[in-house]
Amino acid sequence: VNPGLLSSGYELVFQTATAIFAVTGVLAAARRNMDVLSFVIIGVVTALGGGTIRDIVLDTRVFWLQDPTYLYVAAGAAIATFFLEQRFRTMRAFLYLDATGTAIFAVTATAHTLELGFPEGIAVVMGVLTGIGGGVLRDLLTGEPTLIARRELYMTPLLIGLSFYIATLHVAPEMQPAFAIIATALIAAVRIGAIRFNWAFPDWLTYKPFKPS
Amino acid sequence: VNPGLLSSGYELVFQTATAIFAVTGVLAAARRNMDVLSFVIIGVVTALGGGTIRDIVLDTRVFWLQDPTYLYVAAGAAIATFFLEQRFRTMRAFLYLDATGTAIFAVTATAHTLELGFPEGIAVVMGVLTGIGGGVLRDLLTGEPTLIARRELYMTPLLIGLSFYIATLHVAPEMQPAFAIIATALIAAVRIGAIRFNWAFPDWLTYKPFKPS
Amino acid sequence: VNPGLLSSGYELVFQTATAIFAVTGVLAAARRNMDVLSFVIIGVVTALGGGTIRDIVLDTRVFWLQDPTYLYVAAGAAIATFFLEQRFRTMRAFLYLDATGTAIFAVTATAHTLELGFPEGIAVVMGVLTGIGGGVLRDLLTGEPTLIARRELYMTPLLIGLSFYIATLHVAPEMQPAFAIIATALIAAVRIGAIRFNWAFPDWLTYKPFKPS
Repeated sequence: VNPGLLSSGYELVFQTATAIFAVTGVLAAARRNMDVLSFVIIGVVTALGGGTIRDIVLDTRVFWLQDPTYLYVAAGAAIATFFLEQRFRTMRAFLYLDATGTAIFAVTATAHTLELGFPEGIAVVMGVLTGIGGGVLRDLLTGEPTLIARRELYMTPLLIGLSFYIATLHVAPEMQPAFAIIATALIAAVRIGAIRFNWAFPDWLTYKPFKPS
Repeated sequence: VNPGLLSSGYELVFQTATAIFAVTGVLAAARRNMDVLSFVIIGVVTALGGGTIRDIVLDTRVFWLQDPTYLYVAAGAAIATFFLEQRFRTMRAFLYLDATGTAIFAVTATAHTLELGFPEGIAVVMGVLTGIGGGVLRDLLTGEPTLIARRELYMTPLLIGLSFYIATLHVAPEMQPAFAIIATALIAAVRIGAIRFNWAFPDWLTYKPFKPS
Repeated sequence: VNPGLLSSGYELVFQTATAIFAVTGVLAAARRNMDVLSFVIIGVVTALGGGTIRDIVLDTRVFWLQDPTYLYVAAGAAIATFFLEQRFRTMRAFLYLDATGTAIFAVTATAHTLELGFPEGIAVVMGVLTGIGGGVLRDLLTGEPTLIARRELYMTPLLIGLSFYIATLHVAPEMQPAFAIIATALIAAVRIGAIRFNWAFPDWLTYKPFKPS
C-alpha cells in the first residue's frame, strides 16, 4: 500500500468510492448484449483508470499493484451491477455518491502530488486527471463521445474546488485537513448543482463558429 | 534484453508470435486507401501494444526498447501483409496461430509478473492486458468498435487458462514449465473453439435492458 | 527542467512550438458548443501528448512535470485561440509554423533518445511518436478519425528527415548541430509540400482490396 496516499483510516473511504465509480461507470455504459465480463472491464477501467494514468505520469507505483483489493472491489461492484441493475438505476443516491467520490479522489490526488514536491499547477492537473480520466477511458473503450464534446460541466467543479484548496494552503496550512474536506464538499456541490440545474458555460465562453461546422 | 521475460531459448518463439500478431492485426484492420506506412503502424501497435502497456503499468523496462528486433519483426510482417494479403487471407492457419500467440504472450506475462513478486490477481490482469491490449489499441486507432462491444468470447479463454495455471502453481510448483505449456494450449483451444463454434455467454450472463437502449 | 532535452537556449523555441501546436490543434478540433475549458484540454493534449507518451515509454521524467510553463503556455494558447479564432484561421503562417514545430519536436526527441543510449531504430520511433502522438490523442478524445485512416502523408516526412539525421551522424558526427537543423528544415519542407501539393503514396503502396471493404 502506498502510505502517502492511503493511510489506513482512509482505505475504506477509497474502496467505497471505487465501488461507486464502478457502479456508475457500468450504469452509464451498459449496452444490450454486453456480457458480464465486459461489465467487469468497464467497471475496473472507470474506477481505476484515472488514478492509474496519474501514477504513470508521476512515475509513482500504480496504486492497485501491491494491494489488489481495489481491483476486486471494482470487479465485484461491476458484477453486482449486472445482476441488480434495475434496482441501482432507480437509486437517486448514486448521483450524489458519484459526485462525492470524484471529489474525494481529486482532492486526495492533489494533496498527494503536493506532498511529492510537485508545483501547484501540476497538482491541480493530477487532481483533474484522477477525477475524470477513468470516465474518458471508459468512453473511448465503449465508443461513446468523450466529455470533451458534451456541454455538461465536468471540469469546472474540479477547478473551483482544487483552486480553493490550494489557496487555503497558503493562507492557513495548519488547517489542511479541514480545508480538504471543505474543498471536497465544494466540488461535489457544484457538480451536483450542474447536473440538477443544467448549469453550463455562458454563451460568450461557448464556441459558435461563424460558419456552422 | 529483459532476462526474466525472454531467456534466449524463447526469443524465437516470441518473435514468431510478434509477427503473427502483426499479420492478423493488419488483416483485421486493413481498409481501402490506407498506405503501407499505416499498415506498419497498425502492425506494430497490435503486436507490441499489450506488452508495452503491461511494462508501463508494472514500471519495468518496456520490452522492445533495448532490443528493437521486435519492432522490426512487427514492421516487416506488416509490410509483407501489404504485398501478400490475398495469400494470407486464405490461410486458415492464421486463426490458430493467432490464438496460440495470444496464449503464449498471456501465460508468459502472468509467469513474469509472479516472478516480480506481485499478487496473483495482478498477474492475471497483466496476462489479460498483454493478450488483448494491442488489439484494443488498434481498434481505437482505426475507429473500430473495441471488443467490449462484441459478443465474441475474448477474455474468457484467458481467464480460464490463467486461473488454471495459477491453481497448478499451488498444487505442484515444481512442474511449472509443464503447466505453463498446458495452460497455453488450454487458452488457445478455448479461443479457437469460441470462434469456430460461436460460443458465447448464456443469456443470463448477457445484458438485456428492460427498455431497449 | 530536463537538462538533456532542454538546455536553456532552446527553451523559448520549445515553448513557442508548444503554443503553435496548441493553436493548430484547437483550430482542427473546434466544434460548435464546445466550452472554453474543452479548448484548453484539446490544446494541452495536442501540444504535450506526444512528448508525454515518449517520456513514459522511455521511463524518463515527463518533461512538463517539474516546469509547468509548458502546461501554461499550451493552456494560454488554447484560450487565446478561443477568442481570436477568426483571426488565426486566416493566417496561412500557422500551416508552416505547425510543420516546423513538429520537425523541431521530432528531431530533438530523436537526438535525446540517442543521447540516452538507445538504438537508432528506437530513436526514430520516439521522434515519430513525439511528432504525431499529440494529434492522435486529440483525435481520439474528440472522436475524429485518426491519421491512420487519412491519405495525407503524416509519417513520411518524419521518416525521411530522421533517417537523414541518423545517417549524417555516422558520416560526420562532429557536425551534429548543423545536420539537426538541416533535418528539421527537411521534415518541415516535405510536410508543407505534401499539404500544398497533395502528395500521397503511389497506388502500388496504397491498399486496394480485391472486394471493396
